[in-house]
Amino acid sequence: MDSSKVSKHLSMNGGDGSHSYVKNSSYQGGILEAAKAIIEEEIATKLEISTNSFFSVADFGCSTGNNSFPAMHTIIEAVKRKHESSADLKTPEFVVSFVDLVSNDFNTLFSSLPPDRSYKAAAVAGDFHGRLLLPSSVHFAYSSWSLHWLTEVPKAAEGLKSVWHGGEEIEEVYDAYLGQFERDMESFLKCRAVEMVEGGIMALLIPSLPAYWDPQKEYTVGSLADLLRSSLLDMAEKGKLSKAKAETFNIPYNVPTPEELRAIFQKSSSFSIERMEIMKSGTLLNVDGHVAFFRAVHQNLLAYEFGAETIDETFDLFKKKLEASPVFADPCNDRSLVVVAILKRNDV
Amino acid sequence: MDSSKVSKHLSMNGGDGSHSYVKNSSYQGGILEAAKAIIEEEIATKLEISTNSFFSVADFGCSTGNNSFPAMHTIIEAVKRKHESSADLKTPEFVVSFVDLVSNDFNTLFSSLPPDRSYKAAAVAGDFHGRLLLPSSVHFAYSSWSLHWLTEVPKAAEGLKSVWHGGEEIEEVYDAYLGQFERDMESFLKCRAVEMVEGGIMALLIPSLPAYWDPQKEYTVGSLADLLRSSLLDMAEKGKLSKAKAETFNIPYNVPTPEELRAIFQKSSSFSIERMEIMKSGTLLNVDGHVAFFRAVHQNLLAYEFGAETIDETFDLFKKKLEASPVFADPCNDRSLVVVAILKRNDV
Repeated sequence: MDSSKVSKHLSMNGGDGSHSYVKNSSYQGGILEAAKAIIEEEIATKLEISTNSFFSVADFGCSTGNNSFPAMHTIIEAVKRKHESSADLKTPEFVVSFVDLVSNDFNTLFSSLPPDRSYKAAAVAGDFHGRLLLPSSVHFAYSSWSLHWLTEVPKAAEGLKSVWHGGEEIEEVYDAYLGQFERDMESFLKCRAVEMVEGGIMALLIPSLPAYWDPQKEYTVGSLADLLRSSLLDMAEKGKLSKAKAETFNIPYNVPTPEELRAIFQKSSSFSIERMEIMKSGTLLNVDGHVAFFRAVHQNLLAYEFGAETIDETFDLFKKKLEASPVFADPCNDRSLVVVAILKRNDV
Repeated sequence: MDSSKVSKHLSMNGGDGSHSYVKNSSYQGGILEAAKAIIEEEIATKLEISTNSFFSVADFGCSTGNNSFPAMHTIIEAVKRKHESSADLKTPEFVVSFVDLVSNDFNTLFSSLPPDRSYKAAAVAGDFHGRLLLPSSVHFAYSSWSLHWLTEVPKAAEGLKSVWHGGEEIEEVYDAYLGQFERDMESFLKCRAVEMVEGGIMALLIPSLPAYWDPQKEYTVGSLADLLRSSLLDMAEKGKLSKAKAETFNIPYNVPTPEELRAIFQKSSSFSIERMEIMKSGTLLNVDGHVAFFRAVHQNLLAYEFGAETIDETFDLFKKKLEASPVFADPCNDRSLVVVAILKRNDV
């Protein structure tokens, strides 16, 4: 798989139509709600503020903006409060850099920017595993539900018929995915280390899995991905798409355990872990909600791999699979986790 | 006319289809070609460079990027050469802010960014008559064929049946347009004065008209706008669009004479005029070329005012009018001018 080509199609579904990310990702607002208190507390206690005339925030993986705007608001209001509580400090001007892939729908982002925002907005297009912003230009970096996407499907996983098995992945493939994830995270941290000011804070929200869980009674985001792959294989059986392609197709993301994440952060010499909270993802999505969200997230990628005409039927099959399993009937069976990690850019 | 509403529809036609700005504005590349030597010389002789780690360029009115990219390349290469010729100075990192209205097609801009560019790119959406960038953050500001657009049609022109008459505008209307243009230019200069560093350079390419010319034998961009309005009135006569609307519709731009422009620049206490060159626009467009360019530029505005279904026929009529007049048969009759103004941000 040519990663340079695939990464062009990893964007969330654009526009604001019925299958758009805008319309089908509101549950991520709930994730932010839970992380909000952590972010506010860390800004109040850990952020070192100086007499700079501006304060720069960057969101890596902003998508069409609908989940980014409330997050940026939370961060900026907390920084403002900190300035206001200090008699010596003038409130700076704020600027937010909205970062996502070139294929992202930035037109929708710009046209839905909150009119009453208290920051200047800029969009930056490109792969955040490379350098995108000026050196020492970012005071606060944020990324939510983006870092699990890989720059490429690891070679070891190619050609294998199954990757996700509800917690029973083949070990070799598991390691290959994790290895790719580590390399990608390291690239991300290395680039941000250049772009962030010393003492700058980074808040990362990353989907995560418990090390152990019971696939007979519980599910995770990995189970959903597994059923999506299985739907593609059924489509191939029905002759609706290439069997060879469906069998070798793997979704280019990796959902790590909190322990795996901590190990990666600890390797970085540029960032220190200030805090790491493990939260239940608490999506409380029913089957329709899962289907709509998965479609908004995967539609561009699947349309690129298998053709736009296969999308409706693939997600019909996916929905039937979710409905057929009693596990998905109760949102409380969702064992998916979210890690909220607060890292600080070390003084050099 | 509600200016806040109209300004949403002033963007050049997006995408890369047959009527797009991308496909029909290549003659503007010729304008840059002529301005290139001036810009390079001014950077070599006037730009004060410091030991900054970055150099920031902003293009105000970038549209879909096709005419912006070569301009940004010219500027950055000239700044690079200046750094390289100095033994003490390290070449900085470059960043370009591409600025245009919220309705601009930034997706097309991002997807066509030159892959071998030597700068980081950011997009900024908003009206450049207001503040958009951080204070003292821009070293070089550029704007080409954008500043003639007005924030609103002046009140005095509303309800009048004709504005452009091939050089014979009604004086009151002429003054009202010029007044609005002055106010808009002043807002632009005021905001840029905040955003630019002291000693920063601004290169403005602005369409212009000679004070006197012979509408019987010659034409200008004003003549073309006049015929476009006349085509709209014909459409109204045919019952294809609202007569009342067509009669009161005025295109929200003003094409000043070089002398008018100079007077506006001279009023600014923040900028000094370093150089002002008056060039023939030298488009050398034939009738088809004029029609295609005018359509790419005006389509969004006219579709908003009169409906998308009226566009094809309006431009058919417009084309017939150009063909019917012997004046437009020879591109050498084009008396349109372009002013290349180099301004410098004063030390405060």
